[in-house]
Amino acid sequence: MHLRRTSRATWHGTVGDGDGTMGLGRDRVIVPFSLKSRVGDQPATNPEELIAAAHAGCYAMSLTNVLENHGTPPTEVTAESTVHLVQGEGGFSIPTVDLSCDVVVAGVDHDELTRLAAEAERSCPVSQLLDAEITLTVRLTEGNES
Amino acid sequence: MHLRRTSRATWHGTVGDGDGTMGLGRDRVIVPFSLKSRVGDQPATNPEELIAAAHAGCYAMSLTNVLENHGTPPTEVTAESTVHLVQGEGGFSIPTVDLSCDVVVAGVDHDELTRLAAEAERSCPVSQLLDAEITLTVRLTEGNES
Repeated sequence: MHLRRTSRATWHGTVGDGDGTMGLGRDRVIVPFSLKSRVGDQPATNPEELIAAAHAGCYAMSLTNVLENHGTPPTEVTAESTVHLVQGEGGFSIPTVDLSCDVVVAGVDHDELTRLAAEAERSCPVSQLLDAEITLTVRLTEGNES
Repeated sequence: MHLRRTSRATWHGTVGDGDGTMGLGRDRVIVPFSLKSRVGDQPATNPEELIAAAHAGCYAMSLTNVLENHGTPPTEVTAESTVHLVQGEGGFSIPTVDLSCDVVVAGVDHDELTRLAAEAERSCPVSQLLDAEITLTVRLTEGNES
């Protein structure tokens, strides 16, 4: 299987005063962005939030897959990703991404879940793609015995 | 400057039959996804399209910045990113990302724009983040002399 997924963005004007839009693939959900929404508090999104959403989504699927293969399919996986955008002497970079997950699953204790969550982080294609230090926090929010 | 941008995703049920949502940061634009929207033709988005949108958006800003610093600010930059999701023996991975841009700018010829576009690719924090081969195509769609 070899899939190609394409999205497009447009920027008008200068970096400081201009603005742009990012379109999400075929769906053509269009989200606006600007320098103020990227490094300030303007309530619009930015590339880092899209990376974080992609990472969280991919990881939630990967962890579900790992838990299914382990014979303990989860009821729900919530993942959160925090992308660090740092301005240094050489410009902006993303050195670190913090990943955390809350898992509702029966029949797995915290240590086992931690091991499986790390396995999912290694197999998640978006985690693999990110050339950053990725930290991982695991929360077993419910563990109803089956 | 050190910014943290957080997004969240939730997955319910199995990978094959379940579904999930990805929320884009503070804005809380919520987009649904599923296995069918990821590896099939279902009209919803997926993590790869979000990566592509983030890449295109970040690169459009970076190229605008490079052209401004060059003394030739562009009128418009459109960037397109195509993420390749490949299933191999070890699972899914993203080995390649194709990046292209259409630039409306005056006072820059195609060779100079190609050089500046490559510089922007190297300085774009999302390009730097992606541990994949990135190809780059440049189109000078208009070159009104100033």
